[in-house]
Amino acid sequence: MPKQRPVPAAGAAAIASPLAASPSFLVRLAQLRAFDEFHQQFAGLGVTPAGFTVLALIVANPGVRPGAIAEELRVKPSNVAALVNALVAAGLVKRTPDASELRANLLHATKKGLAAWKEMEGSHRAADARFAERLSVAERKQLVAMLRKLLQR
Amino acid sequence: MPKQRPVPAAGAAAIASPLAASPSFLVRLAQLRAFDEFHQQFAGLGVTPAGFTVLALIVANPGVRPGAIAEELRVKPSNVAALVNALVAAGLVKRTPDASELRANLLHATKKGLAAWKEMEGSHRAADARFAERLSVAERKQLVAMLRKLLQR
Repeated sequence: MPKQRPVPAAGAAAIASPLAASPSFLVRLAQLRAFDEFHQQFAGLGVTPAGFTVLALIVANPGVRPGAIAEELRVKPSNVAALVNALVAAGLVKRTPDASELRANLLHATKKGLAAWKEMEGSHRAADARFAERLSVAERKQLVAMLRKLLQR
Repeated sequence: MPKQRPVPAAGAAAIASPLAASPSFLVRLAQLRAFDEFHQQFAGLGVTPAGFTVLALIVANPGVRPGAIAEELRVKPSNVAALVNALVAAGLVKRTPDASELRANLLHATKKGLAAWKEMEGSHRAADARFAERLSVAERKQLVAMLRKLLQR
């Protein structure tokens, strides 16, 4: 079981929350916490959570199309385009024309992008560990399984 | 078990995702999905997810202090102040001075706020049901339990 942070004394009286058993409310709170951990681990790496995710998918799928990334992340293609633009501007990703489709591009990580990814991967693992530190290994797996099932399309 | 949406044919080939078992990544995806459901159910009600949450806490805790809301939602007091301002401007919430502390305010829902809350509560239940529709009742409980444990402080 991962090392746990100290539980604060019960002094700060909790207030009644009609949303305490709402999955979508709890997911929102958890997501704020995840961003906190991300920003702590990624300080100075100059990448947002969304940019990191897009880079991860490009590294894992050399030559991927932006549309496939949008599909995987459930976001609009225009959002992916903006994130890819930022990664290209940072020298981490390059676009190559898609021979089979005039207006399309294929995405590859640059050498610099691959090196940056290696560093970020460790930071992300650390952020994930902190994020889920109150859960046992089995509970973390359960959470992942429930979220994956919820996200199925 | 709630009614499920049809699962799309496996045509849209999934791409490899190095983050497919990352709790914080999956929570982020789930949160995007939760906002989608919220916006569909709350269309025309003129409230954001955050504004809805703050109103929920004020309704459930008449006379609550903004600081207690910030604590409960793990956000900065200045963010809560902005959300409360919007609810006050919309006539849903009123501030009354705290007799025990000069600069503090206590928050109450107005009559209009209570009526709005009633309508929103149903919309939120519907959004939650859609959000978690792929999970059985037992799985939904499991997800809620895991998220609550993860969020413990």
